[in-house]
Amino acid sequence: MSFNTFGHLFRVTTWGESHGPALGATVDGCPPGVEIDAAALQHWLDRRKPGQNKFTTQRQEPDAVRILSGTFEGRSTGTPIQLMIENTDQRSKDYGDIARSFRPGHADITYHQKYGLRDYRGGGRSSARETAARVAAGGVARAALAALAPGLTIRGYMVQVGPHQIDRSRFDPAEIERNPFWCPDPVAAAEWAAYLDDLRLNHNSVGAVIEVVASGVPAGLGAPIYAKLDSDLAAAMMTINAVKAVEIGEGMAAAALTGVENADEIRMGPNGPEFLSNHAGGILGGISTGQDVVVRFAVKPTSSILTPRKTITTTGDETELITKGRHDPCVGIRAVPVGEAMMACVLLDHLLLDRGQTGGQRGAIG
Amino acid sequence: MSFNTFGHLFRVTTWGESHGPALGATVDGCPPGVEIDAAALQHWLDRRKPGQNKFTTQRQEPDAVRILSGTFEGRSTGTPIQLMIENTDQRSKDYGDIARSFRPGHADITYHQKYGLRDYRGGGRSSARETAARVAAGGVARAALAALAPGLTIRGYMVQVGPHQIDRSRFDPAEIERNPFWCPDPVAAAEWAAYLDDLRLNHNSVGAVIEVVASGVPAGLGAPIYAKLDSDLAAAMMTINAVKAVEIGEGMAAAALTGVENADEIRMGPNGPEFLSNHAGGILGGISTGQDVVVRFAVKPTSSILTPRKTITTTGDETELITKGRHDPCVGIRAVPVGEAMMACVLLDHLLLDRGQTGGQRGAIG
Amino acid sequence: MSFNTFGHLFRVTTWGESHGPALGATVDGCPPGVEIDAAALQHWLDRRKPGQNKFTTQRQEPDAVRILSGTFEGRSTGTPIQLMIENTDQRSKDYGDIARSFRPGHADITYHQKYGLRDYRGGGRSSARETAARVAAGGVARAALAALAPGLTIRGYMVQVGPHQIDRSRFDPAEIERNPFWCPDPVAAAEWAAYLDDLRLNHNSVGAVIEVVASGVPAGLGAPIYAKLDSDLAAAMMTINAVKAVEIGEGMAAAALTGVENADEIRMGPNGPEFLSNHAGGILGGISTGQDVVVRFAVKPTSSILTPRKTITTTGDETELITKGRHDPCVGIRAVPVGEAMMACVLLDHLLLDRGQTGGQRGAIG
Amino acid sequence: MSFNTFGHLFRVTTWGESHGPALGATVDGCPPGVEIDAAALQHWLDRRKPGQNKFTTQRQEPDAVRILSGTFEGRSTGTPIQLMIENTDQRSKDYGDIARSFRPGHADITYHQKYGLRDYRGGGRSSARETAARVAAGGVARAALAALAPGLTIRGYMVQVGPHQIDRSRFDPAEIERNPFWCPDPVAAAEWAAYLDDLRLNHNSVGAVIEVVASGVPAGLGAPIYAKLDSDLAAAMMTINAVKAVEIGEGMAAAALTGVENADEIRMGPNGPEFLSNHAGGILGGISTGQDVVVRFAVKPTSSILTPRKTITTTGDETELITKGRHDPCVGIRAVPVGEAMMACVLLDHLLLDRGQTGGQRGAIG
Repeated sequence: MSFNTFGHLFRVTTWGESHGPALGATVDGCPPGVEIDAAALQHWLDRRKPGQNKFTTQRQEPDAVRILSGTFEGRSTGTPIQLMIENTDQRSKDYGDIARSFRPGHADITYHQKYGLRDYRGGGRSSARETAARVAAGGVARAALAALAPGLTIRGYMVQVGPHQIDRSRFDPAEIERNPFWCPDPVAAAEWAAYLDDLRLNHNSVGAVIEVVASGVPAGLGAPIYAKLDSDLAAAMMTINAVKAVEIGEGMAAAALTGVENADEIRMGPNGPEFLSNHAGGILGGISTGQDVVVRFAVKPTSSILTPRKTITTTGDETELITKGRHDPCVGIRAVPVGEAMMACVLLDHLLLDRGQTGGQRGAIG
Repeated sequence: MSFNTFGHLFRVTTWGESHGPALGATVDGCPPGVEIDAAALQHWLDRRKPGQNKFTTQRQEPDAVRILSGTFEGRSTGTPIQLMIENTDQRSKDYGDIARSFRPGHADITYHQKYGLRDYRGGGRSSARETAARVAAGGVARAALAALAPGLTIRGYMVQVGPHQIDRSRFDPAEIERNPFWCPDPVAAAEWAAYLDDLRLNHNSVGAVIEVVASGVPAGLGAPIYAKLDSDLAAAMMTINAVKAVEIGEGMAAAALTGVENADEIRMGPNGPEFLSNHAGGILGGISTGQDVVVRFAVKPTSSILTPRKTITTTGDETELITKGRHDPCVGIRAVPVGEAMMACVLLDHLLLDRGQTGGQRGAIG
Repeated sequence: MSFNTFGHLFRVTTWGESHGPALGATVDGCPPGVEIDAAALQHWLDRRKPGQNKFTTQRQEPDAVRILSGTFEGRSTGTPIQLMIENTDQRSKDYGDIARSFRPGHADITYHQKYGLRDYRGGGRSSARETAARVAAGGVARAALAALAPGLTIRGYMVQVGPHQIDRSRFDPAEIERNPFWCPDPVAAAEWAAYLDDLRLNHNSVGAVIEVVASGVPAGLGAPIYAKLDSDLAAAMMTINAVKAVEIGEGMAAAALTGVENADEIRMGPNGPEFLSNHAGGILGGISTGQDVVVRFAVKPTSSILTPRKTITTTGDETELITKGRHDPCVGIRAVPVGEAMMACVLLDHLLLDRGQTGGQRGAIG
Repeated sequence: MSFNTFGHLFRVTTWGESHGPALGATVDGCPPGVEIDAAALQHWLDRRKPGQNKFTTQRQEPDAVRILSGTFEGRSTGTPIQLMIENTDQRSKDYGDIARSFRPGHADITYHQKYGLRDYRGGGRSSARETAARVAAGGVARAALAALAPGLTIRGYMVQVGPHQIDRSRFDPAEIERNPFWCPDPVAAAEWAAYLDDLRLNHNSVGAVIEVVASGVPAGLGAPIYAKLDSDLAAAMMTINAVKAVEIGEGMAAAALTGVENADEIRMGPNGPEFLSNHAGGILGGISTGQDVVVRFAVKPTSSILTPRKTITTTGDETELITKGRHDPCVGIRAVPVGEAMMACVLLDHLLLDRGQTGGQRGAIG
């Protein structure tokens, strides 16, 4: 896990910049024989695609993925799978301001300081466009999981936009696909629409909280101490652009619980252990319990806004900067499919790791 | 970064169980010529040591660290440094209940399921004793940082115990060393003492929030996309026992901010860029800005409590379990030096990584 | 270093099959600011290109490399560099025999057994075409080395074809570029031409020995114990198709030397230590001495020949197989630029590693 | 695979110097449930132990191994296994000459240049004592292999000492344990004894060639392209002190073979494919064929000899150095158990890797 590669056995290396000819993912370590085709991957990419409604950037990108290697007659061969997405809507424009000034809250200044140069066109490597490659790789991971852990499902949704949280008593899974926010609460979805419209007109942006839940995860995935499932999930989510916090299960709220409240009591069910609650978010000691794996992460507001902010130029002069262009008022929306993709990659990686070390056998209870 | 090893160039492998003969850390990749002696490492271990007051486990362990390799005449040679801490207070006792039953909220059941067997004595590898090895390794990292980044300081403290948070208007750095909670707010410290006394008498435990701040971190540490400084910090903190959430800068609160509020505006100071705020927690695009690096993490309550909880046995029978023994009513207290140690390891690792790729040179501004 | 990725800090992941749409290399960890353009990379690819004379495969491939990411205005940005080479001459043909039968001495049977399926077209991933991606990546490494270690040069050549070795008393560096064999001995080159003509007419192939020498390598590269420079070089060369042995310095011949003969005695020269001989091949204890780094490797004969060989089919039937197609009578010829590329990648990787751990400072002598 | 760690899933980190308090290996990733006890490991260490006859160093070390972690009631728990060997015979002596001068052919000078300081006592980290840790780790690997691949055996022996090779027509496996050279040819063993006696009296040393053969290796181990089984074996053997060359199967001799000669023809046997020869050394395309895996490596002569050699001091003065002390006239002898240990570690690692990616299933033939 270093620089631009993620994972231990199922390893994803993403490459490419916002305004270069293409970007993509080199996926190594996929099990052989998995059915993979471009159409199936495209399904996931289409969910992340920009320009689908007024709440995301208006950049028009088909995000069409091509499989350049690693499959034969529709199945993975066990060799590296190269997924390429060509950039098509690199609007010709004057990058003068962004080239010369650092957007506050953006990676402009740190890339400049670290590397001495940066591809300022659309944020270069630090653009949210990089996440398209993750979604494609996540599609490969999902296909492999479908073969290796048939009942496993992954579902992401937004639970908070700015200060507005969902009401969990109104949680309706079917609602998630019905609004542009992947919001499981229809009332909240309506509120968010109005709130974001208002923000957009005021040249502002806002943060969000996304929750991703994996059900049907076998017990026993994860490994002490430095490849704990929750540690790898935290690392994975924290690599997504603009993410500032990651929670597992109760998350920050666990601090306020007592031991009596927090312990998920155990009973014996017909198919093995059953837990009476899931404060742990499906992970104990870094290893999955078989319950739902529950991860939440907070996304900060887009830093590219039309409201002028104080900054400096590369020559050290003080200035005010307005970031024009096609930016997301709430980049958290498009982070939902990305979070799902990272969950898929981490789970598959740990499934392979576990199979490697233990053969996938489970200690018997009862 | 896999299984029991942490880090890219500065790599720490911890080993050992709670009740085996010893535990320790194999520290590889330390720069040569760093002044390291056992006394300096002991200083940090003494801060984490159990049994120092009534709010931590009463197990009496000297936690005396020996350096078995990697130094010569008081300086690191660039070869692996083996740090060993012998276990001395492995109280002879009947482990019957814990051997047969799974503590709710504990790694007992997942280790059993994954590995088919477990060292149940004191939690084995999942015991908080493992963190002693991290603190020793963190001492090595601090010594190297002192040589390579002289002004860099790392400071951890508790900001919340159960529902009780500190009042930041009373924040006093000097106070941190004056109470058993590493609490920077003297009023909160007194409240926490009373609150924890009460919990202990009621056979209960509680969670906490720890904040770790590194000042004097050079700009330019971290690397897109999958070795972002914040991602590696999140992974590091999430590997600490009982941690359920990690925040950078504003953390979860970033979700509720607008882009106008969240952007840390930039001005030109006498020594380079200066930021008018630090919502980012010192990291932009995964790379350090030169501001304070601010990390917070939540620790869940100790699962080993004297209140009976419902559980099952290894033979699948339902039972109630009371966990006797010497356990921490708030394990978060001892997590403070551990969080500091992980911060030190991550920062040194990224300092070496950055020096490797860029030579440590910084792009000029102005 | 795992599966399809090579290197620690300068990491190359190659992807692609012989008859897929494209192949390439994802190069991660390149220092920023290095001047890289496609033309410079093409220079190295052209040297490996097939079809340049009658002694290599007649497949016609332009091997035109495109840089899809990681550079901006002609310089590396420090982000992943994607190098893509499209396959153009995938001659439409009947793969029937090869699809059904396993070529003796080829990876056909092991890929089938391991993965359960294989891309049999041209050998798929096990084709020597994969090495084009290495040569492209090696071009990036050379460009970085030119900036970081200006005097460093890398030179490969053949020293043996079948039983015919060069006469080192006739060694002429200028001769290397004058014959199709990268042979430094003009007399041997003529002999080899006649010998290979004869082999080709007899539907046979033959092995070879390649030597690669790096001059101007700074002392201090390499790291005990499991990232020794010679160990990483051995791994690198052994990954090249058909390589069966790797030697450093005296190599196998070191077994027959006495300690008195083998020790490279040391004298003090005007610029530091000087060695009176180089039996060590420039590496002591896994670390470079500053002398020439000398590596040799043996390449076995191409297994795809027109002479019938006994084998079995995927259905377990016994048969005889003649491998038609455009194959190299001595694949060792094209291995010369590949060996150079691997040397460049390993040296750059260790230069970055050394800079990371030690800052690139050298212990003084005198 | 970096610095002092070896392996992908079964990872061995060795630590310790020749004259420090102890040395050892941190073994991570061992499958759970493997029967491991110190006595079994000691069996392998005793074979490498110095001072057993006049042909190895007279240093007296019991090389007693202690298991400090990772096992419970005699079985591995899946957590890190710490193996410690205390140094006992660190003879008090004057290191003056070695401390001030660099032994020609030794790592003294490169460690000094790289790190700026070195533990000169007995060679520090570059001492052959480090290999004791590998043999202990190899014992763990053998125990796991016994459980996972029951028929697998590993056998090392010497095939050449100085210019004297064995006669393979006299190869007798039973002879290997009967002489101090692990020599399978009784006539050669007698010759070697006389030859080495003579060398020792003349204050000289000599090199050797060791062959290690693994039988019963399942087909399908190894992974293209940069974790080929032969590449990992080459890296493993090349990390052993004094090794200068590694061969697989025909090795360097493959260069002189034609394609007709070299192809191992295939027939169908009662249990699957059978090969009519084994020029490949059991590996095709980096993946095991099921035949014997055959590795050879050359060890250079010990550089510490009593004959004076020209060298320089740390202050840059020219001098002549005689290396007193207890050194091996042919260090290759003790390399035999080390080569076996490395073979065991690599095979187990690849067995786990293969199980992770493919589940250990094999593509059917017939």
